[in-house]
Amino acid sequence: MADLAALSALDLRDRLAVGTLSAVDVAEAHIARIEAVEPQIGAWAWFDADFVRKQAVALDKLRKSGQPIGALHGVPVGLKDVIDTMRIPTENGVASDAGRVPRSDALLVERLKAAGALILGKTVTTELAFMEPGKTRNPHNVGRTPGGSSSGSAAAVAAGMTPLAIGTQTGGSVVRPASFCGVTGFKPTFAAIPTHGVLQQSPSLDTVGVFPRDPRDAALLCDVLFGPAEGDTPLPPPAMLTTVTKGAPLKPIFAVLTPPGADRAHPDTLAAIGELSEALGEQCFPVELPAIFAEAETVRRRINFAEMARCYHAYAERGGLAQVTQDAIAEGNTTLARDYIAALDWPKVLNAVLDEIFARCDAILCPAALGPAPGPETTGDAIFNGLWTLCGTPAVTVPVLHVEDMPLGVQLIGARGNDARLLRTAQWLYDWIETEDDA
Amino acid sequence: MADLAALSALDLRDRLAVGTLSAVDVAEAHIARIEAVEPQIGAWAWFDADFVRKQAVALDKLRKSGQPIGALHGVPVGLKDVIDTMRIPTENGVASDAGRVPRSDALLVERLKAAGALILGKTVTTELAFMEPGKTRNPHNVGRTPGGSSSGSAAAVAAGMTPLAIGTQTGGSVVRPASFCGVTGFKPTFAAIPTHGVLQQSPSLDTVGVFPRDPRDAALLCDVLFGPAEGDTPLPPPAMLTTVTKGAPLKPIFAVLTPPGADRAHPDTLAAIGELSEALGEQCFPVELPAIFAEAETVRRRINFAEMARCYHAYAERGGLAQVTQDAIAEGNTTLARDYIAALDWPKVLNAVLDEIFARCDAILCPAALGPAPGPETTGDAIFNGLWTLCGTPAVTVPVLHVEDMPLGVQLIGARGNDARLLRTAQWLYDWIETEDDA
Repeated sequence: MADLAALSALDLRDRLAVGTLSAVDVAEAHIARIEAVEPQIGAWAWFDADFVRKQAVALDKLRKSGQPIGALHGVPVGLKDVIDTMRIPTENGVASDAGRVPRSDALLVERLKAAGALILGKTVTTELAFMEPGKTRNPHNVGRTPGGSSSGSAAAVAAGMTPLAIGTQTGGSVVRPASFCGVTGFKPTFAAIPTHGVLQQSPSLDTVGVFPRDPRDAALLCDVLFGPAEGDTPLPPPAMLTTVTKGAPLKPIFAVLTPPGADRAHPDTLAAIGELSEALGEQCFPVELPAIFAEAETVRRRINFAEMARCYHAYAERGGLAQVTQDAIAEGNTTLARDYIAALDWPKVLNAVLDEIFARCDAILCPAALGPAPGPETTGDAIFNGLWTLCGTPAVTVPVLHVEDMPLGVQLIGARGNDARLLRTAQWLYDWIETEDDA
Repeated sequence: MADLAALSALDLRDRLAVGTLSAVDVAEAHIARIEAVEPQIGAWAWFDADFVRKQAVALDKLRKSGQPIGALHGVPVGLKDVIDTMRIPTENGVASDAGRVPRSDALLVERLKAAGALILGKTVTTELAFMEPGKTRNPHNVGRTPGGSSSGSAAAVAAGMTPLAIGTQTGGSVVRPASFCGVTGFKPTFAAIPTHGVLQQSPSLDTVGVFPRDPRDAALLCDVLFGPAEGDTPLPPPAMLTTVTKGAPLKPIFAVLTPPGADRAHPDTLAAIGELSEALGEQCFPVELPAIFAEAETVRRRINFAEMARCYHAYAERGGLAQVTQDAIAEGNTTLARDYIAALDWPKVLNAVLDEIFARCDAILCPAALGPAPGPETTGDAIFNGLWTLCGTPAVTVPVLHVEDMPLGVQLIGARGNDARLLRTAQWLYDWIETEDDA
């Protein structure tokens, strides 16, 4: 049974679809895995084995009835506890939401349920998806942070408790924990996955992302999650799994970037990226960004904190927030409208520069984090991630490097809207490194 | 020749299209009218008879060549001097832009030129389309204000110098001057006419509008101006003239509103609306707005001034602005981001209430202004207009009332996106009152 918890989401999906595997078997395997490792990891904010079993029984019944099944029929998914779920708690990692049970599902949860996903439970978020750590530990070293704010989602996938989990990124809350925990983390183009029913921290930045083991599984999941909400501007329809499965027609080209903040990186991080570039040879060329990009993090922070001050006003009134959250809200409360409005103009300028780079490569390549996961006092530094959140470009980290015996991700960034191509490129890198390692 | 300047835009268009009238004749008639009355009115910021004559000659040549002509072939249009025009000045009503000649046309000017419109010149705006009066006088009484900020556009149409003019509204800058000058003023649904190349004062509110003599001519003009700019969310395609010409299938129903601020209205204004409602009889029912609407003007002002502080930063640095403009920028400079962000949420709430009213009527009916045009020291009060600018609903004033021997408009407001229906309803009211007056 334990082997089932090691399978990819796509493998599970295929076996479930043809009936060689039952949803109950999948459920029991993952429940067993969770019961075995959760005490050490603490990835779940809410988990109830019976809740999972009931869904599994219903899913098996559906398949046996001969009715059409969904694209994720029986595939386990964990949901960051800032994503509203009907009838089960959504506590947003904050004491004042203890016992909060939403009356409806987030739009993305509706899509998951319609696709037949097996909802395993709610994963730990930092307080209000900001920087105060939760209880989760890094499965590769329980003395280190799993990263945040999607701490539980990253750790649950890394520990084999679920093949898929969903998180959110406002700064670096998907890509950073994925890098620290050694899984794939994919933050799509801004607004590609609707945020209706997801805790709002900063609506100009909040982006729903996914945690699978490899990019192919991200495509499987995003085919279900992508698509405009009613009234939103339509985006290209997803056919991401097909694109990733077909593979790249040519070897992808990477623009290797030393991003703003690289002076603070672990030396082994830059060395590892250097070695990777060398190995990729003619598939790489170096790029630099204009000096203006060094200010992007300040700009992103200005937008984030100002919108946070607005969105978390009621939480701040209730009191009891961690100091780091209070400080951010206090800073946001003093931001002037004119500075905030000016900040909102930045992505346009930055994207004009990035678009010229994307015209010459399949993806920008840079480290996903400064280095391996630090100690548990913080959730780490998001300096290599916030720029892409601000610009709304899709970014994915693939777990292919190691520093200090800990995982470190290689981050690939694509042009806005080119999510499928980015995942295809990421899968190419993932497969290529596996081949190189074998050789 | 002078009679030509009294014709509607639609009449001119039809005669020009079949060749019973030449563009040169139309040009000369309007040049003559401008030369006769402009010294008293001061509606033009830039006017050059030769510039008009050259276009007219080219337009006649085009028609005679047998090539297809545009929907506004030879029809004169005046442009508020905040709308960029290639090779002729656009001075935004501000001293520091004296002699400024844009290198390209605003998108709406491109559309006018493509449709064969005869560009007469640039009409006077208040300083930076805000509240400091310009040189324009009210054609009905040169001792009174024409209103603002689209002062010249309203006065030029009222004085017979052009059948059509274009303006902008961020508070009440189209509907109010139209009411004061006794012409039709139409502010379409927010973003229906693209603002590319138009002075930005407050991008969340800035709306391009039109000044014709009657609603039908507004439809003729808007058929050319409407349509998304590249990259914008598409809006329903215009077929406004057809809709207005066909007329309403049933007698329209009006929701008569005493809007926030009515306690400051001229008593004759409310009496005139009361008489009109009585005459309309069963076509009217009274509506009230929830108390929350009383705060809408404060909210609109918060957005307006905060964005103005950002947009006019460079103008403020250059100095020399009128006190009223400086004060607004100073207020905007102190606005907090959280209050600004909160203000941006208001239209959603207000529109939810309005949508329920629009489900029961063809248009909301209320006065277009507190009363007739006041003296020339101010441009009047926009209290009856700003709410509709904030909500992005189309609003049109038709010149059917009189107070103190001055014109006063009846304002009709429609549901967002229902611009054609609103103009059809406005034309019905315009025609109905003419019939009533004749009776």
